[in-house]
Amino acid sequence: MSRPLSATTSYERLAAAGVRAQLARIEELVTSTRAAVDAIASGTVDQSTLGALAANVIPRWHFSMLNDRERNDAYATALERQVVPGSHVLDIGSGSGLLALAAARAGAGRVTTCEANPLLAEVARQIIDTQGLTDRITVLATHSSAIEIGREIATPADMVISEIVDCGLVGEGILPSIRHARRELLAPDGTILPQGAKLYGQLMESSAVQRLNHVEVACGFDVSLMNALATHGHFPTRLATWPHCALSAPVELLSFDFTRDVPEQQNRSVSFEPTTSGTAHAVVAWFELDLGAGVVLRTTPDNTATHWMQAFLPFPAPVEVAAGRSIEVELRCVSTRLSATPTRVCTEAPSTTQEATR
Amino acid sequence: MSRPLSATTSYERLAAAGVRAQLARIEELVTSTRAAVDAIASGTVDQSTLGALAANVIPRWHFSMLNDRERNDAYATALERQVVPGSHVLDIGSGSGLLALAAARAGAGRVTTCEANPLLAEVARQIIDTQGLTDRITVLATHSSAIEIGREIATPADMVISEIVDCGLVGEGILPSIRHARRELLAPDGTILPQGAKLYGQLMESSAVQRLNHVEVACGFDVSLMNALATHGHFPTRLATWPHCALSAPVELLSFDFTRDVPEQQNRSVSFEPTTSGTAHAVVAWFELDLGAGVVLRTTPDNTATHWMQAFLPFPAPVEVAAGRSIEVELRCVSTRLSATPTRVCTEAPSTTQEATR
Repeated sequence: MSRPLSATTSYERLAAAGVRAQLARIEELVTSTRAAVDAIASGTVDQSTLGALAANVIPRWHFSMLNDRERNDAYATALERQVVPGSHVLDIGSGSGLLALAAARAGAGRVTTCEANPLLAEVARQIIDTQGLTDRITVLATHSSAIEIGREIATPADMVISEIVDCGLVGEGILPSIRHARRELLAPDGTILPQGAKLYGQLMESSAVQRLNHVEVACGFDVSLMNALATHGHFPTRLATWPHCALSAPVELLSFDFTRDVPEQQNRSVSFEPTTSGTAHAVVAWFELDLGAGVVLRTTPDNTATHWMQAFLPFPAPVEVAAGRSIEVELRCVSTRLSATPTRVCTEAPSTTQEATR
Repeated sequence: MSRPLSATTSYERLAAAGVRAQLARIEELVTSTRAAVDAIASGTVDQSTLGALAANVIPRWHFSMLNDRERNDAYATALERQVVPGSHVLDIGSGSGLLALAAARAGAGRVTTCEANPLLAEVARQIIDTQGLTDRITVLATHSSAIEIGREIATPADMVISEIVDCGLVGEGILPSIRHARRELLAPDGTILPQGAKLYGQLMESSAVQRLNHVEVACGFDVSLMNALATHGHFPTRLATWPHCALSAPVELLSFDFTRDVPEQQNRSVSFEPTTSGTAHAVVAWFELDLGAGVVLRTTPDNTATHWMQAFLPFPAPVEVAAGRSIEVELRCVSTRLSATPTRVCTEAPSTTQEATR
């Protein structure tokens, strides 16, 4: 059942080509895997073997994340203040094992840390081993949702900690992971760190950032079919490094209380009051992560110390907004994706402020 | 044969874990492929089907590239000036099909464009179809190295054009592709566009950029084993958006004449004369692409209009340099990767310039 985009375009043929592209990618990965297995078998594993594997399965942001002192210090401080000595801490998303190490240093008697990426899990294991903490920290090469009490861990954890947080907070799956951990892996009176989070955002004009994920015409040719390959939902941008103009003050978009059941899907109509007239391309969002005990991480656009970028939630099409005329935006958070769609641009003239008269 | 990094680390176990990580990635791709096939079979292909496929196989930079007017105009102008009316043009790396369209508009009688990514090839096909140019432009969903005269194309091309150029010029394989095309697919008196390229670079201090691919200590813990997962060779950086300090003037690193056989591997010792004392973390490189007929594309760090970033070639370890004391750097270009290794830091005091005396 072909539903042409125009007389000559077809989503079905694109999807079939996408399947072929994924099969080609699988073949590349099989070839790379075979080369690595050969290197292991012949005892010739070296830096380039690992580099080739890592290039396929490890995003480079792990380095800027590990070098983010603001992030590291915030988590370390929050752990120092809240880990109960001798308690059992479950860390979701080991990465290098850093938070597990910090939890152990903060006094945890036992730390279980899980990592869905097998290569990262092994790095964490070896780093923890180098620190001589293998007896107190257990690395599980698994997604937290696959952990069961009585199987991977003997008893529920006293504390669940996690930093699987992308620029848009939800992109690495913190909502379903914390939801599952709260229900299945945490002791009834246990602690969750972070305990909550808020997403903030403002109306943004930035054709420069919009063009990172959208195209219309190039050299006079309509190449807009490329937009069928665009990213849906939010994508990261270092807002300060691109021309942009905020068209509204920041407003709270969504609020999450991790100590309760967090719904994985949230829709909310958010009202923005433009302070400047212009072309709104997106809502730009950032988060506040409440680590408890007074420790809060913020990724506001003017925070250039953090490794987190801001999240760009492109509108389906740009909308013209006028200062003082409110605009309603449907904000959706579905599992790991944020999106924003203007639903109503108020065309009423704003009520003029009455001047005081004597 | 385990060769431990330290008492407790092992490259072999990391490689085995990397193999498991790639197998997990393959499983994800198989799951995604199955979902797409199901959507095709049930006639439910939509934007989200394509978005999910594209997220796995299409880098987002295609959008900034297509929106790069400097690039587009340079190629369009070079084609207008050099395409012989009625000739056969072979375009390597279709992408959206833009250069093939521009070649046809410039007067080519026949254009063959090849694209190794099947999804992009189909997008190009449909865009070209929408422009009504299917009779003059043929899209081959194949790598150029798989093309044979008498099979995919009837006769050698009069002109070979390509823009498979990353920030470091060579990263998308332009050297082997042009080498093959010159030998196998181009008529003896044919034209190559670009006809040549030069790589320039300067000694750079930037711990900010270095930390995007390197880590030592976090929260007081040695997590340097993560560097086993670092990118080898060059990686892209928008230099202007990070704190940095140039420690030398730009020098020519490598020169490529595409009208002759280009060696795929080049080693060259490059001498830098530091103009400022400091810690050199890398050579930062950019290119000049000679499109012929007086058209040159430059991606110097001060060019903020181009979508190309600069290429960061991290040193194995930072080196201290002193103003006026030359430093030798071994520059290597192996197929698609650039790397830079300091070989000698001159510790001789520079000869003082003789003042003219009366």
